[in-house]
Amino acid sequence: MKTFTHRVRPLPQISESTVRRLSHYYRVLEEVEAEGKRVISSRRLAEREGVTSAQVRKDLSCFGSFGRRGLGYDVAHLREEIRAILGLERRWRVAVVGAGNVGAALLAYRGFEKQGFDVVAVFDREPSRIGVRLGTHVVQDVAALSAVAAREQVEIGVIATPVRAAQEVADLLVAAGVRGILNFAPRKLFVPPHVALRTVDMAMEFESLSFALARARPPKSRARG
Amino acid sequence: MKTFTHRVRPLPQISESTVRRLSHYYRVLEEVEAEGKRVISSRRLAEREGVTSAQVRKDLSCFGSFGRRGLGYDVAHLREEIRAILGLERRWRVAVVGAGNVGAALLAYRGFEKQGFDVVAVFDREPSRIGVRLGTHVVQDVAALSAVAAREQVEIGVIATPVRAAQEVADLLVAAGVRGILNFAPRKLFVPPHVALRTVDMAMEFESLSFALARARPPKSRARG
Repeated sequence: MKTFTHRVRPLPQISESTVRRLSHYYRVLEEVEAEGKRVISSRRLAEREGVTSAQVRKDLSCFGSFGRRGLGYDVAHLREEIRAILGLERRWRVAVVGAGNVGAALLAYRGFEKQGFDVVAVFDREPSRIGVRLGTHVVQDVAALSAVAAREQVEIGVIATPVRAAQEVADLLVAAGVRGILNFAPRKLFVPPHVALRTVDMAMEFESLSFALARARPPKSRARG
Repeated sequence: MKTFTHRVRPLPQISESTVRRLSHYYRVLEEVEAEGKRVISSRRLAEREGVTSAQVRKDLSCFGSFGRRGLGYDVAHLREEIRAILGLERRWRVAVVGAGNVGAALLAYRGFEKQGFDVVAVFDREPSRIGVRLGTHVVQDVAALSAVAAREQVEIGVIATPVRAAQEVADLLVAAGVRGILNFAPRKLFVPPHVALRTVDMAMEFESLSFALARARPPKSRARG
């Protein structure tokens, strides 16, 4: 068993929620920039995002001083700053493990490439899937993961396998030297502290909806088109 | 063009971020309850969730007073309270539109049922997919959406179609009387204000990872297993 001796700098206290809001601000800024706007107020950023303008200012102040009171934020500048904060000013090399529905859905989505995430390899363990073309990729045997990940300098691994295989694949990815894992399998995974782990929980998206619906007064009659 | 005359009570100022954290707390509470723990401190909830204990107390105080200073929160009680806040104490009737990879991945995931979301119908427009069995469902023609949604009393519609079909499907769902839409198509959709809309942005999950990786000092050499 290998131990990991390198250490990473501890992360500043930036919560997951703040990072998500930064991602949202980034999208709003792209949108208003496309509309030809050059300046945006924290109030406008907040309106579009559904938070308070105080929250926007607080979020952005974590990373430096961008806007000027009463003048608002320079759209292009703030977008570039958030882009750098989110680590999107460079490209990331990604391997997807699991070529089932989730893996195929991810590969079909072109948005990742635009944001700087390049899928460089796709793996599965099912003989019926290995060798099959999926988008621009040919599915490889997961047994080759370690060698391919090293050669392709994979930095991020995506786990899109069934639950029962997820921890084993996480161990493989860690051993292959990835620095981050995005997990779509609905279970808790264990990785060493130097590897960043995010688990996508689809049920949370539904819960956000049911929260809103449970608080809204239901309409007296169903609308019909 | 029909106008919608019923009105919903305006939502209190609870941000998306707060709701997501409530979902997280809910999962932590389920976990510690399964471990047999009866009481949890805001500090413990915060540790597990990666936020400050002040944030936990603030989040929970939006909805009433649950814990007692120095004594912590009763695990079972707080879990039940959050369950009610998230609208999970009842079941929701869901239709999935789009039986491609995203739709199939959603149908394969058993977690939704556990959280109270029952898929009652699946639709597609592709003749090759209509009539095909997907899990326990038979894919129906989207032309039948309006009639089926009314008969099945669908409350939430999931859009798992290609981008080009997403707005049209949203209009169909609204006309069929759904109260909430979960959109997986990477585009902005327009729905009337009485319909709650959430768009799942997969790239945001990647951005959360790249944020963490960009801030961590890269290891000097790649670890090998």
